[in-house]
Amino acid sequence: MSGEEEGTLCTVSFSPDGVAVEMVRGTTILEACRAAGIAIDAVCGGTGKCGRCKVRPKGLFDPGDTSALAEEERESGVVLACETLVTGDLEVEVLPRSRIREHQILTRTLETPVVKLSPWVRKVLLELPKATLYDNTADFERVLRALGDRNLEMPIVTLRNMSNVLREGGWTVTATVADLKSRGEITRLEPGDKCGCLLGVAIDIGTTTVVGQLIDLLTGDVLASASEYNRQISKGEDVIARMMYGEENGVGELTDLARETVNSVIGRLLEDTSKERECPVTAVDVVGAAIAGNTIMTHFFVGVDTRFIRLEPYVPVAHHMPPRSGHDLGMEAHPSSDVLLFPSRAGYLGGDVVADVLASGIHRSDDLAMLIDVGTNGEIVLGCREWLVSCACSAGPAFEGGEVSSGMRAMHGAIDSIRVNHDFATSYHVIGDERPNGICGSGLIDLIAEMYENGVIDRKARIQRLQTDRVREGEEGLEYVVEFQGSLGEGATGDLVITDADLQNVLRTKAAIFGAATVLLRKMSEDLDGIDTFVIAGGFGNHLDIDRAVSIGMFPDIPRDKYRFIGNGALEGARLALLSEEMRKDMVEIFDQMTYIELSVDNDFYDEFTSSMFIPHTDLAKFPSFKDRGSQETAR
Amino acid sequence: MSGEEEGTLCTVSFSPDGVAVEMVRGTTILEACRAAGIAIDAVCGGTGKCGRCKVRPKGLFDPGDTSALAEEERESGVVLACETLVTGDLEVEVLPRSRIREHQILTRTLETPVVKLSPWVRKVLLELPKATLYDNTADFERVLRALGDRNLEMPIVTLRNMSNVLREGGWTVTATVADLKSRGEITRLEPGDKCGCLLGVAIDIGTTTVVGQLIDLLTGDVLASASEYNRQISKGEDVIARMMYGEENGVGELTDLARETVNSVIGRLLEDTSKERECPVTAVDVVGAAIAGNTIMTHFFVGVDTRFIRLEPYVPVAHHMPPRSGHDLGMEAHPSSDVLLFPSRAGYLGGDVVADVLASGIHRSDDLAMLIDVGTNGEIVLGCREWLVSCACSAGPAFEGGEVSSGMRAMHGAIDSIRVNHDFATSYHVIGDERPNGICGSGLIDLIAEMYENGVIDRKARIQRLQTDRVREGEEGLEYVVEFQGSLGEGATGDLVITDADLQNVLRTKAAIFGAATVLLRKMSEDLDGIDTFVIAGGFGNHLDIDRAVSIGMFPDIPRDKYRFIGNGALEGARLALLSEEMRKDMVEIFDQMTYIELSVDNDFYDEFTSSMFIPHTDLAKFPSFKDRGSQETAR
Repeated sequence: MSGEEEGTLCTVSFSPDGVAVEMVRGTTILEACRAAGIAIDAVCGGTGKCGRCKVRPKGLFDPGDTSALAEEERESGVVLACETLVTGDLEVEVLPRSRIREHQILTRTLETPVVKLSPWVRKVLLELPKATLYDNTADFERVLRALGDRNLEMPIVTLRNMSNVLREGGWTVTATVADLKSRGEITRLEPGDKCGCLLGVAIDIGTTTVVGQLIDLLTGDVLASASEYNRQISKGEDVIARMMYGEENGVGELTDLARETVNSVIGRLLEDTSKERECPVTAVDVVGAAIAGNTIMTHFFVGVDTRFIRLEPYVPVAHHMPPRSGHDLGMEAHPSSDVLLFPSRAGYLGGDVVADVLASGIHRSDDLAMLIDVGTNGEIVLGCREWLVSCACSAGPAFEGGEVSSGMRAMHGAIDSIRVNHDFATSYHVIGDERPNGICGSGLIDLIAEMYENGVIDRKARIQRLQTDRVREGEEGLEYVVEFQGSLGEGATGDLVITDADLQNVLRTKAAIFGAATVLLRKMSEDLDGIDTFVIAGGFGNHLDIDRAVSIGMFPDIPRDKYRFIGNGALEGARLALLSEEMRKDMVEIFDQMTYIELSVDNDFYDEFTSSMFIPHTDLAKFPSFKDRGSQETAR
Repeated sequence: MSGEEEGTLCTVSFSPDGVAVEMVRGTTILEACRAAGIAIDAVCGGTGKCGRCKVRPKGLFDPGDTSALAEEERESGVVLACETLVTGDLEVEVLPRSRIREHQILTRTLETPVVKLSPWVRKVLLELPKATLYDNTADFERVLRALGDRNLEMPIVTLRNMSNVLREGGWTVTATVADLKSRGEITRLEPGDKCGCLLGVAIDIGTTTVVGQLIDLLTGDVLASASEYNRQISKGEDVIARMMYGEENGVGELTDLARETVNSVIGRLLEDTSKERECPVTAVDVVGAAIAGNTIMTHFFVGVDTRFIRLEPYVPVAHHMPPRSGHDLGMEAHPSSDVLLFPSRAGYLGGDVVADVLASGIHRSDDLAMLIDVGTNGEIVLGCREWLVSCACSAGPAFEGGEVSSGMRAMHGAIDSIRVNHDFATSYHVIGDERPNGICGSGLIDLIAEMYENGVIDRKARIQRLQTDRVREGEEGLEYVVEFQGSLGEGATGDLVITDADLQNVLRTKAAIFGAATVLLRKMSEDLDGIDTFVIAGGFGNHLDIDRAVSIGMFPDIPRDKYRFIGNGALEGARLALLSEEMRKDMVEIFDQMTYIELSVDNDFYDEFTSSMFIPHTDLAKFPSFKDRGSQETAR
């Protein structure tokens, strides 16, 4: 715990990564992690609150406040990276669950609605008459003349290079013409015939993950898909933490991190695609981009303040962010590429949900549909061809690894499905077929359903005192052991448990979703039976057992064949908008048509939420499939 | 001539300026001048060719090649700043004629055509309903709703600040709305009622001088005028030298220098205006700009290459430079201000001439008019309401201080009018009422007319051998002494003379102008007598004695009441376009209507040029006022 003089550099090495950085004495291990490029989970942005950034250092350090840690953790040498000061050379082990790793994310493509291929960019081959003394019209006007449209604009960056391109191509050039803005633009000129290559990207900027696809705009084909954690995570896990960070430090850093992530994804898309091509594709070949993100991500990406979204009355800067150029948005794309940003309906109902609706097609159907996208927030849209209403509920991050002590995101080492046996022991599946480090959203739903079915918890999700070593008194009341330390992944510092507090958090999340859905139906004088299609969007649906989700009262107890998973609807919607003018019109229409209902001040919602704080619900008539079981339990 | 070690810093001080700079040993005195901010005349861009940058250093230096200097100059310690290396501490005197100083330039305002005040920017006071939970539309859409136009765009820089402005103003804000582009834009938002201040600038970017006016867009009043030498002069005096500099070094430096000059002019406009106001005005108050310049200056200002203008077939990058924002053009103005650039008809017929026509109103008249703008090039427009034709001739810089050994620009110390007396001595007027340093354009026209009338030169402008000490054999043939050294300004290193070579240069210039005018008339089957109005534009007209210009055969011998001076038509045209929608439409119509005739390949022009190489002309019938005198002289 003693160290060298202030200002001295200390070597901090990370195992088993084998990387080392020089840090000034007195900096935190969290800062060293960031400097070394070690992706560490620090939900709270490094303020010592979340207790996630667990590391086991060897060497000279000052552990600071360790009160967020369990006694056993402290005893085994675990400290919090954000609280621990480097006071000398150190070797640091980052506990597996504290690492942000490769994870499962949905990038699969849906069945595409049949749309006419009509991207807003096209290529035109121009064979220009050579300039002579008798026809020495300027180069720009010569190009306009050949295109037959004197109202086309040309960005300055394209204008600068035009004269050389014309002469390099011997007056045969390929013009890329974009019609996204009110006035068309010649965004790119290439010497010769380059009509064979026209690329765009579809991007979903999520709070947690950025997913992208490289699209061939001439065929509509997806050439490559890639995803990456949103690098903003280091500034706070959820949108509220990030907005607060932005208010304190300016949005600039968050904007940079979002753009870095997007650019890294695009870089990977180009790399993957180039491998299979004779001519590699590069960033300048990307001449269009469609981006769907939640309202806050969209604001950060554009670089505008989110202060007034966070505070009542929750006002965004803009619903429609006017189209920008790739250059304006710092994107790894042609500087004059047009970037279409999906419009956000409200502070907590963003362009990603508009894209979900677009991808689902519910706005084109006569059937009544409910669409739900569960992430850190839950967003719900109800409607049909005639009308759409929407709302958002703070579902909380329980299903994304937050608010639950053993929770983690759906990545390697996460239990994604689980059974509780008659002896209260468990069998489970772990993503990546490893030893488990925690439980992800679909695993939690399974777990709660199974605990309830086996009598480990009651209708209020309270753990029952049972004759088994799986149920015991913990520091914070009763807890259930999902798996003992010996069977867990490397670095576990105790058993994998779920506590009464954890269960209440999950219960609140599912209650918020079901409550919001109920209120939305009531506002439109509809009920659960009236729903023809129930659409689940988002990465969540990928791993989800719908029966279990219904059994805990999270989703409605309607015929299972009404359920439909659309996967990453935000990404799919972005792709459709990139490819089809009809879809771009639909996007605007969905936005215009979709009424937003603010639940945060809705007493009705509060009542419904409270009624939903049971498994499956206070009113068992709402869950006919489970009515008998419910009565049995009540009779016990 | 010996010095200290390489890399040593030497102090170079300038007298009488009293400024000193530290320069690395081995740099040139010209570089030291630039570093010290001493504006020195270096026409050739510092290549030792023009012999203009004369200085008299004291201390340690290496004079390099002095062959461009006269023997007496060398003897009096004069060297060329561009050739002379600094080898130790130096005190440098810059010869007065080598300095670029304040000069007379036309910034006076014409009688304004009566136009409806209709700038493309307006201010609108918005009293917005406060955002509430029941009306939490985004700030941007709230502003659009109040303006009743959902298609308005907003630049990102305005968007970024909008939310704070709305709240700072208590939901009362002033929107600046611009309609220059195809789609309107909200370029600025200010808290509270700021409807009383709306400013624009009109700018004429000349090869030599940049002139600007600050305009109150609410009243049309000119609030201030200012002018400054184009800082590009250090990279070459004429457009050809600058284009070559740009080809060798990239246009970036020239773009920067043009923008620096424009910004310095704007800075002075704002400073002058602020003095007389309670609230000072600043760059962000400038929300519109109209800029007229020749084609090359416009290209440099925007930052595009001029390579293909210089080479046959003389093709500009663009006639119409699409409107840009102040930010795009690096202007000291509101970053989202729209900048209107006048369209250039051809490589050597620029937006300044379109602006001349606009200011002259000849395009709206049934009368046949000829408009001529003499600068480094001569540009001529012929036409009326129905049609316009135009041409450019390389008049050469004889009237702007170039190509004539005693020539200088119309600035302090320049003879601007002169008489040759019967004893061949001279009387003259000097700008600034100082001792003369040289002769400017109007002085040269006077001088040649007077020399011819007094028999000092013949019809071919050859100096006659006369019995006077004013005519003598010089190094390059006969020369006429305009003034002896003793009566000249400080620093003169010899008598002020005009040589046979100088006279031939002036003759070529006037012949090119008259020849071009004749050809233009003939192409349209018109003749001199058909001209109803002869318009002279440009700073030149300010000092010009029209009778003398006619007597040497530069301008046509038509009734003097047909002559009209419009002064700086480029600036005036820019002001009109800034203020009036009708004028902006006229600007486009003038451009569309104005046919350009390329004279450089016109045999007819070559013939007319040759015929005009006499005083006043080979064909004396063209100059009836001078017919008798001509015959007399022929009889001599």
